[in-house]
Amino acid sequence: MTPVFRVLGGVFLGLAVFMAPPLLYDLSAGAATAAYFVFTMVATIFTGATLLALSASSEPFDLTRRQAFLTTGLAWILAPAIGAIPLLGLGVSYVDAYFEAVSGVTTTGSTVLTGLDDMPQGILLWRSLLQWIGGIGFIGLGIIVMPFLRVGGMQLFQTESSDTSEKILAKSIEITRWIAVIYFGLTAAAAIAYGVAGMSPFDAVNHAMTTLATGGYSTHDASFGYFRSPAIEWIGVVFMVGGALPFVAYIRTLRGRTWALFTDVQVRAFLAYLFAAWSIVAVTHSTVNHVPFFDAFRMAAFTATSIITTTGYASTDYQLWGPFAFGAVFLFTFTGGCSGSTTGGIKIYRFQILARLAHAHLTRLLSPSQVKVVTYSTRRVDSEIAIAIQTFIGAVLISELAVSIVLTWFGIDLLTALTAAATAISNVGPGLGPIIGPAGNFASLPDGAKIALTAAMILGRLEYFTLLVMLTPAFWRD
Amino acid sequence: MTPVFRVLGGVFLGLAVFMAPPLLYDLSAGAATAAYFVFTMVATIFTGATLLALSASSEPFDLTRRQAFLTTGLAWILAPAIGAIPLLGLGVSYVDAYFEAVSGVTTTGSTVLTGLDDMPQGILLWRSLLQWIGGIGFIGLGIIVMPFLRVGGMQLFQTESSDTSEKILAKSIEITRWIAVIYFGLTAAAAIAYGVAGMSPFDAVNHAMTTLATGGYSTHDASFGYFRSPAIEWIGVVFMVGGALPFVAYIRTLRGRTWALFTDVQVRAFLAYLFAAWSIVAVTHSTVNHVPFFDAFRMAAFTATSIITTTGYASTDYQLWGPFAFGAVFLFTFTGGCSGSTTGGIKIYRFQILARLAHAHLTRLLSPSQVKVVTYSTRRVDSEIAIAIQTFIGAVLISELAVSIVLTWFGIDLLTALTAAATAISNVGPGLGPIIGPAGNFASLPDGAKIALTAAMILGRLEYFTLLVMLTPAFWRD
Repeated sequence: MTPVFRVLGGVFLGLAVFMAPPLLYDLSAGAATAAYFVFTMVATIFTGATLLALSASSEPFDLTRRQAFLTTGLAWILAPAIGAIPLLGLGVSYVDAYFEAVSGVTTTGSTVLTGLDDMPQGILLWRSLLQWIGGIGFIGLGIIVMPFLRVGGMQLFQTESSDTSEKILAKSIEITRWIAVIYFGLTAAAAIAYGVAGMSPFDAVNHAMTTLATGGYSTHDASFGYFRSPAIEWIGVVFMVGGALPFVAYIRTLRGRTWALFTDVQVRAFLAYLFAAWSIVAVTHSTVNHVPFFDAFRMAAFTATSIITTTGYASTDYQLWGPFAFGAVFLFTFTGGCSGSTTGGIKIYRFQILARLAHAHLTRLLSPSQVKVVTYSTRRVDSEIAIAIQTFIGAVLISELAVSIVLTWFGIDLLTALTAAATAISNVGPGLGPIIGPAGNFASLPDGAKIALTAAMILGRLEYFTLLVMLTPAFWRD
Repeated sequence: MTPVFRVLGGVFLGLAVFMAPPLLYDLSAGAATAAYFVFTMVATIFTGATLLALSASSEPFDLTRRQAFLTTGLAWILAPAIGAIPLLGLGVSYVDAYFEAVSGVTTTGSTVLTGLDDMPQGILLWRSLLQWIGGIGFIGLGIIVMPFLRVGGMQLFQTESSDTSEKILAKSIEITRWIAVIYFGLTAAAAIAYGVAGMSPFDAVNHAMTTLATGGYSTHDASFGYFRSPAIEWIGVVFMVGGALPFVAYIRTLRGRTWALFTDVQVRAFLAYLFAAWSIVAVTHSTVNHVPFFDAFRMAAFTATSIITTTGYASTDYQLWGPFAFGAVFLFTFTGGCSGSTTGGIKIYRFQILARLAHAHLTRLLSPSQVKVVTYSTRRVDSEIAIAIQTFIGAVLISELAVSIVLTWFGIDLLTALTAAATAISNVGPGLGPIIGPAGNFASLPDGAKIALTAAMILGRLEYFTLLVMLTPAFWRD
């Protein structure tokens, strides 16, 4: 267990460091929540230090597969358990606070809180920080850990640092540094752009963090609707897309392959899909509701981008646009962005590979003797990857049905249940309908439903199999 | 094209023969629809005879793969096109008539007609016959054609007659004869049981046919609610299950392997699932709505069986039971019965194999070097079958989303759209909500939506790839 403790100890100490800015905000404002930050910080530092002390070792640090699964699962379950504590200062229950923190760390963005506009700034900043930390954590997971663990077909994206060794983390320090620089740089750029376009510095920094994390927490109940600014909406669109692109392609670009970002097969498909989504929603919204086309286009671009990148901001209540907006948003909820980004959902490359597999399947149906090799980018999609990707897509859609049934069992109507399940699994944020729609809130759901959705957010974020593997008896056998 | 014409000619002549009983009913009652039956019968006989004359050949009859795909697709598109014509006698549009006939032949059971209780008996009988013919047609498809075509992983069920030859139909005459005897025998048993329990002879025969076909057309607007008879409902349950079991297992039983039906791995899972579904719905209905347990159990058994076997009868408006009934029914809509039965949906064996693949996947995640062979019954699930089954499940769930979006584009609310798409794809019948729920009707939907649902019913019935293969350029290349 030593290496597991060591990573978790580090995660805890890191969390404690990030609690400093919110603490300072709430201290200077004399907010009652400051005491909760002090308590949590002390407890987290103590726990983290204890874990590190217990795991002190002179051996070179490395994780086995089993330890990597365990560490990943525990980090994503325990970090929000700690992150939830300061939220108790608002007087909410721990179920609510944990829901909110998980929604943060998984960059989902569903909220049980109202009255954001009057909330202590430290709490608002903490929510944004949880998403920001969760975002970079997930990029690291997608680029370094998942390809090593082969979860969801991610071995397709093995890089030099992950495909040669049976041990992890050995060569990944350089990649981690690149990811951090790019993530921080994009966040800073977004903050400056938001500020120039008219947001207050506090709003600009918070929204920049939750934009790049494709998280969707806002400092206002009305989300982007608060600002009533087309410029701010377009900046949001640009940086939500920025957070949804594969960070490996950014690294390649910065390493000198200038066009890497635009020659990537996944990026091209993603941008084409995004533009198609903008256009069809814009044309329908414009014709059905008689909205001037360029206004409709901006609203459609913001809404479609917000849902497809699994961010979940709202600039307007798109539920008023009519049934097609419901249908389109529900579909968008499942899509997601690119691999190795902050987005959730099924993700573009899996759809691309599914289409190629379906085509190969049709070819074989016609001529069973013909063997067609499926490739993606420069890699061969072998049957192991094919089965992993299809099993993942099956897991998404079957869990969508299963979580919905559980929610209806708690008395939630089917439409709310289906969209709540989908938005949790894909880490998007808002659902559809009067309760959890873009103008709504998850607060009124029964505790059982909140617990089910919290589990769904973590399961979806860790792409199911990272956690499911721990349910097999073989995992615990020595 | 000769063999294709020959089969279609035979199908047309067969259809014409089945038009005789409805024609006699409507003639003797002096119903105006009789003229439509005469016209359709003459036209169908003429077309069928022409096709047979064109394809007269002294060569031994057989179909290539490509011809088998084409024949299957054309038969399922053209037979309802003819079967729809007599319905025009009711004054409905051809879009409505074709929807109704497709809903019949695909054993879906969604209807655009109201006033069934006062409708000419010939028309009612014709609707039931369309389902009955469609039912046995689909059993033949599932046992003889699909394993040969390898659609949806059905090669798993290849029998002696389908796995050795590259040509089809050669040895399948004996199997066809068995299927016909069993199907007719079960239908006769159901009719007798219904009659003894109090149905009129006409009702008994009609419901027997639509029960065994797991089709769901009734001769009353209130469906099984009309009879207010627990005995009739339980008889319905027994024979709906009868139509949902694998007909190959019946054949084995009759050939002397007495317990074949109950030792079948698929049958066991199906019955266990069915009983679990009955129980959880009954317990919830009984507790939430304070219904005496045995009444709740009967209602739950009828409803769950009706949806899971993709029949679609209603004995009561289960939408009044509360949100969980919505959730459960929506989930049941996707399940389906056994392979080689009359049921639609994903079907039990695919879930069983999916679970085994997921388990093997988890084992491999933990120990990548360990190769785990997945088996089903006595067969090995190779990667080709695995990919075929997963691609099929992906096709079901992605088409569910895609068809729903198209429906919302026609202005249909998302809940109606999602449940209409699901019920069409799985060939169940009723949807959920006030419009197309068990007490509702598809008549008020716009034509565009009806056309989309008609296409979905055929796509779902032919398990997608039978039709999709015709969209590949390779199919039409010589």
